[in-house]
Amino acid sequence: MTQITITTFDWVPDLPRGYVRDIRLRWALEEAGLQYAVQSTPFKDRGDEHYRHQPFGQVPWLTHGETSIFESGADLLYVAETSGKLMPADPKGRTEVITWLFAGLNSVEMAVLPFTIFKFSDDEVQTRGRQALDGFLAARLSHMEYYLTDREWLAGAFSIADIVMADVLRLADRFEALDDLPNCRAYVKRAISRPAFKKAFQDQLDHFAAAD
Amino acid sequence: MTQITITTFDWVPDLPRGYVRDIRLRWALEEAGLQYAVQSTPFKDRGDEHYRHQPFGQVPWLTHGETSIFESGADLLYVAETSGKLMPADPKGRTEVITWLFAGLNSVEMAVLPFTIFKFSDDEVQTRGRQALDGFLAARLSHMEYYLTDREWLAGAFSIADIVMADVLRLADRFEALDDLPNCRAYVKRAISRPAFKKAFQDQLDHFAAAD
Repeated sequence: MTQITITTFDWVPDLPRGYVRDIRLRWALEEAGLQYAVQSTPFKDRGDEHYRHQPFGQVPWLTHGETSIFESGADLLYVAETSGKLMPADPKGRTEVITWLFAGLNSVEMAVLPFTIFKFSDDEVQTRGRQALDGFLAARLSHMEYYLTDREWLAGAFSIADIVMADVLRLADRFEALDDLPNCRAYVKRAISRPAFKKAFQDQLDHFAAAD
Repeated sequence: MTQITITTFDWVPDLPRGYVRDIRLRWALEEAGLQYAVQSTPFKDRGDEHYRHQPFGQVPWLTHGETSIFESGADLLYVAETSGKLMPADPKGRTEVITWLFAGLNSVEMAVLPFTIFKFSDDEVQTRGRQALDGFLAARLSHMEYYLTDREWLAGAFSIADIVMADVLRLADRFEALDDLPNCRAYVKRAISRPAFKKAFQDQLDHFAAAD
């Protein structure tokens, strides 16, 4: 079987290291026990070849033979379907995992990402719009806090949905957004205690450090 | 075959009418030629039953027999897989549509939604964080503008990916974010000229008007 290849940047500044989205693919492939290769694309000079694989000039993308897929959500779904791991085969279980995969990206990350953009900008000015945005995040996180009350993982066993959600909440936690949300924090801690995450995280740090 | 049911709010204020996300499901079901029912859940008093179907207290969700699915992305994927419409059956075409479905939600809507939150708040204060957020949106839209240069639809024939992307860009257009992006505007215009969109849009307006 052809090997899956992840493409990420050759280098990034210190701030995003450990948080670049290739970690979601590394993590999933480690969990699935699949062999994979990692290759680099220039961070500073993004050319036609980059945009041909990833129309927004972002990373990662996944290639497998003739197949090239961008969007971490689509990549994770592909890994789950290809490996038969990280997502149940029965229709009900599969649908639950896919639903939570979308929820991590579109209900939670959509609120976390603008919040982090303000944090990365060192912008503490409280305007009405900013308050609305903070309220948006607080509401989404409070619902996650409740949902995680008595659940170890989002949809039964650990799945691709947890890889996305834990990675998204981990970024919120970096900027103290989870300080009053013990269930969310415990969930993140459970997730990042997994050997597959630890290896993926260290591999990403090593990859970027090698380019310094 | 059991009929699919969409659940949306019983009423919403004027501002979001025509833009509530149940329109994505209405639109897809009209395109697929499936019969469906629409039922209401209270906007003002969201109870346990609501959160059991939609843990974030949002709409829509889709029910089909014993299956209940929230997240418009997951709902559209379910409609496509159930109907055999709006997504090719071959692996390559299917993967492309799924990739663009995620792109609409996680690469484009993630930039459009915070922008609209500021617009809905009538907040024109330009802080550093706000400038970063506007730059994030501008970059994402410029890549869409380029991608749509010589494409009628995102991934071959019209698909669930176009339903999401057109709906997301339509909201950006409402706040003049597409004024200098003729390809994006033409794409939105093409999409919303489809009879299935027109019916879905009018049905949503009628649904909320009936509760006034």
